[in-house]
Amino acid sequence: MPTYTAPLREYRFLLKDVLDIGRYSNLPTFSDAPLDLIDQVLEEGAKFCEGVLAPLNKVGDEHGCKRADDGSVTTPPGFKDAYKQLTAAGWPGLTSDPTYGGQGLPHIVGLAWNEMVSSANMAFGMYPGLSHGAYAAIHSHGSDELKQTYLPKLVTGEWTGTMNLTEPHCGTDLGLLRTKAIPQADGSYRITGQKIFISAGEHDLAPNIIHLVIARIEGAPAGTKGISLFIVPKFILDKDGNPGKRNGVVCGAIEEKMGIHGNSTCVLNYDDAVGYLVGQENKGLAAMFTMMNVARLGVGLQGLSQSEVAYQNAVAYAKDRLQMRSITGAKNPNGPADPIIVHPDVRRMLMDAKAFNEGARAFAFWTAIHGDLLHTSPDEKVREKADDYMALMTPVIKSYLTDKGFANATNCQQIFGGHGYIEEHGMSQFVRDARITQIYEGTNGIQALDLVGRKLGANGGRAIFAFFNEMDDFIHNHEDDAELKEFVDALKDVKAQLQDGTMWLMQNGMTNFDNAGAASHDYLNLFGITALTYMWTLQAKAAFAAKKNGGAADPYFDTKLTTGRYFLARTLPDAAAHLAKVKTGAGPVMALAADAF
Amino acid sequence: MPTYTAPLREYRFLLKDVLDIGRYSNLPTFSDAPLDLIDQVLEEGAKFCEGVLAPLNKVGDEHGCKRADDGSVTTPPGFKDAYKQLTAAGWPGLTSDPTYGGQGLPHIVGLAWNEMVSSANMAFGMYPGLSHGAYAAIHSHGSDELKQTYLPKLVTGEWTGTMNLTEPHCGTDLGLLRTKAIPQADGSYRITGQKIFISAGEHDLAPNIIHLVIARIEGAPAGTKGISLFIVPKFILDKDGNPGKRNGVVCGAIEEKMGIHGNSTCVLNYDDAVGYLVGQENKGLAAMFTMMNVARLGVGLQGLSQSEVAYQNAVAYAKDRLQMRSITGAKNPNGPADPIIVHPDVRRMLMDAKAFNEGARAFAFWTAIHGDLLHTSPDEKVREKADDYMALMTPVIKSYLTDKGFANATNCQQIFGGHGYIEEHGMSQFVRDARITQIYEGTNGIQALDLVGRKLGANGGRAIFAFFNEMDDFIHNHEDDAELKEFVDALKDVKAQLQDGTMWLMQNGMTNFDNAGAASHDYLNLFGITALTYMWTLQAKAAFAAKKNGGAADPYFDTKLTTGRYFLARTLPDAAAHLAKVKTGAGPVMALAADAF
Repeated sequence: MPTYTAPLREYRFLLKDVLDIGRYSNLPTFSDAPLDLIDQVLEEGAKFCEGVLAPLNKVGDEHGCKRADDGSVTTPPGFKDAYKQLTAAGWPGLTSDPTYGGQGLPHIVGLAWNEMVSSANMAFGMYPGLSHGAYAAIHSHGSDELKQTYLPKLVTGEWTGTMNLTEPHCGTDLGLLRTKAIPQADGSYRITGQKIFISAGEHDLAPNIIHLVIARIEGAPAGTKGISLFIVPKFILDKDGNPGKRNGVVCGAIEEKMGIHGNSTCVLNYDDAVGYLVGQENKGLAAMFTMMNVARLGVGLQGLSQSEVAYQNAVAYAKDRLQMRSITGAKNPNGPADPIIVHPDVRRMLMDAKAFNEGARAFAFWTAIHGDLLHTSPDEKVREKADDYMALMTPVIKSYLTDKGFANATNCQQIFGGHGYIEEHGMSQFVRDARITQIYEGTNGIQALDLVGRKLGANGGRAIFAFFNEMDDFIHNHEDDAELKEFVDALKDVKAQLQDGTMWLMQNGMTNFDNAGAASHDYLNLFGITALTYMWTLQAKAAFAAKKNGGAADPYFDTKLTTGRYFLARTLPDAAAHLAKVKTGAGPVMALAADAF
Repeated sequence: MPTYTAPLREYRFLLKDVLDIGRYSNLPTFSDAPLDLIDQVLEEGAKFCEGVLAPLNKVGDEHGCKRADDGSVTTPPGFKDAYKQLTAAGWPGLTSDPTYGGQGLPHIVGLAWNEMVSSANMAFGMYPGLSHGAYAAIHSHGSDELKQTYLPKLVTGEWTGTMNLTEPHCGTDLGLLRTKAIPQADGSYRITGQKIFISAGEHDLAPNIIHLVIARIEGAPAGTKGISLFIVPKFILDKDGNPGKRNGVVCGAIEEKMGIHGNSTCVLNYDDAVGYLVGQENKGLAAMFTMMNVARLGVGLQGLSQSEVAYQNAVAYAKDRLQMRSITGAKNPNGPADPIIVHPDVRRMLMDAKAFNEGARAFAFWTAIHGDLLHTSPDEKVREKADDYMALMTPVIKSYLTDKGFANATNCQQIFGGHGYIEEHGMSQFVRDARITQIYEGTNGIQALDLVGRKLGANGGRAIFAFFNEMDDFIHNHEDDAELKEFVDALKDVKAQLQDGTMWLMQNGMTNFDNAGAASHDYLNLFGITALTYMWTLQAKAAFAAKKNGGAADPYFDTKLTTGRYFLARTLPDAAAHLAKVKTGAGPVMALAADAF
């Protein structure tokens, strides 16, 4: 049975030592959330995730969700009770707007919470996760009436939410959507069409489900310019705002999937369902992207979360499983064999995961701080940079953290040998669950294209140049710092490579767009390595400082530095390979005619 | 529903143009197998795999194997009939010794057959695959009586075979095994113990199962020096050689696994079961390695096979699925969108798979030729080199082909987007099935350790130096070949890197064995890239020659060259990254104390 322990010490190190969030205490949301309060919240959250959600993870995988002939869906045993506990404790509203009953904590606290939930039980976490996406879209784009009607129930988690984008013939290409919306005399719409792959689309956890659905209003333009966003509640509200008449949306099937069995992935059939426009007609895509960007950061976190929980279980197994002797001589001479953690190749896989997890978590937190500043800073320049960074980093976090998260979960499964391939130890589930994170909320290929095609060039490259400037400033300010030298040197080196790749793209991606497309995957990976190197440099600086400020006796900081050095030695070599691939251009990639395949 | 088309053209190109097996027609086995006969055999094999086995692949995944309370196991619907057809057509004896009823074709033909079977239905292919391993062990080490008794039935496939190594506490570390063998007055033994993860351990395909079991004879030395190999038939043979009394071996459970559901992975409980010694007492490990080496090449092939079939289905989907427009302008202006094969990042994943598949297949075939020469060449020098190469290349083929096979299957699943994550299209199965190939028959970490710890240094490095010399000779002989220049240059470059890594290992791996262990994974990958570069160079040479010899109008050869150039441009950059990681040494890998994890 796999277990999970929330990385509270890591959160504390990031929030206090690396990001020093105390310096934002003059800003709204932060002012009500001093570090010791955040610590308490995360400790409570850890207890819930470790004690309630983690034990249900394997149960969810084994039982899955079951659809009855009437279209109702039953979640796995224990999910309903856990959801009741979740809402009773107020977790769904952790970072939501106090106007609607939320607790208004900084997003960065929500990030830590989300990682813990996903590590403990990713399939379960998707129910409140999707609700929060629906909350965000309504909060940003809905009318006051819609907000008053729906947000309080989404904030408490009394109702859940969904995102309905995909149709059988249209995934990435939302412009092809066929779901129709017909305006009614009372200002509402009637929605008809089929949506697929709808996570948390139908279940027994809540008395109502608020579907956010994109559809085309009759007569609207073709393509993405004719997409509108609607609220379609499973039960239409009566005059008191309670679930009343059943709406015309039913679950036609639930998908058999590789993983996340505990979440119901539904085919939803809309037949003349009553819907309410969110935001303006034909502006639905922008509104949907509000949800998507929140969701994409969350998906990046899910990738990290599976790497983290798989790593924890692999460490435990590697310390426990006795097999062969160390090649440098017995380390457990009184036992029948040595624990496999003595073997360098096992250590390699554990260190890869550990160095990634801690670097990736820093990257997600560092980015999320900008998400908070975007909403709270009184300084327009700070808000602009925050907005730029959020836009630039989101596809990198989504794609890099999920690709590496999957790779690490797979390596951690490998440490179990044959015992990892059978379902008993839960390692297969981590791999199978992690796999979806590379696919949903925009495949990782789409993220890479978003990065090179949209985010890099936006506002004349303002965001990427700001990032380069920030790293340059750091390098400049620490060039004489002897203890930080190896980190600063590495950052200088990898930043120069990213800059080189960026210049190559700017010169070659515009003359032939296929050059940008062919380079996108490797460019994103080069970006990810650079960002994590920067994060390791920030963490190393914080660790050195903490050692001087009373932490000298705490082995935590030396472990941190050792892990960072491993990252430099063993991850940076990949940067040059990615840069070389960026620079091959589209030539070799596109040389074969499609019919030669 | 996924489909499969056997790559017959690839086999023909490799056997005729690249390996020119006609030149071996003076050797036994080859003399009876001219190219046109091999063509016919493979065409028949293709029909069987495409028409009979492939349609059962998904069925096997969905139904799995079922164990009844009496320990009997039922295979998925259709498997029994397919197995009957398989044996009726004589496929199990394709490369077996004619003395025992085999057809005596070269191993290289068996290799092509195995790839086709595994692509079509890997879980099914393991039943005859394990039988062939049992055949090989008995053939090499059994007494004449055992051979006469068991081989003819294994050759026809009337009976199947298994390999029994793993016990709950002992996987890699076979020296820990506890299964006991007690000598009997009649020369037989009684076997007692528990074996786990036994593929094809119990099923309904054949009236008898010949288990090959390692156990420790009472009083034998501890560790690997006290391991003996036994035949334990499920049914003890009566005096006519027919299955008689049920032996004391029962299936105690079948494992729930991530994939290969169509194969029964059993816990086998031996209780005073009658067994017969194969080879000498306490020499069982060597005998078992005969099976393992055959099996390891086969597992490498399985990795390739999943990459190949996943690639084929991804190509079909990428040509069919309409989504978004090409970033360089519509390619399908009359349709609602372009087929996704126009997108460079989709093309990247397809080209990665294609370039790997064709390079890896060449590597496996080129190696397998040495397996044939080892048994047939009258020239001692040729046999010695063949033996050296088989030993050296086996861990590389097992590990590199399965790691990359899994990665490619995963990328091909990615091309399907969300449709790849649901089970409907079969892409998830290819990934889940491929995953075991990295684990069984010795994890890929063990392969890497075998390569650097045992194979490199054997006979003073004779094998690796022979490989370097062979590449040097090729480079020297083709240095002025203008059309081959880019291939020869690349080979020169990557070979120098492998040589550099080898020298580093020789200098640093002996002073600190952990350096070798920490480098092993990356060294093996560097080796794999070098071997595939050499294979692409050989294929390019053959393609140029074929174009001149009447093939100019055949687009096949230009496609081959384009694919090879992609490999050079987009895979070689990884070599330098692996070399850099080799040279970090054990330092960063082992720096953390075990309890700091």
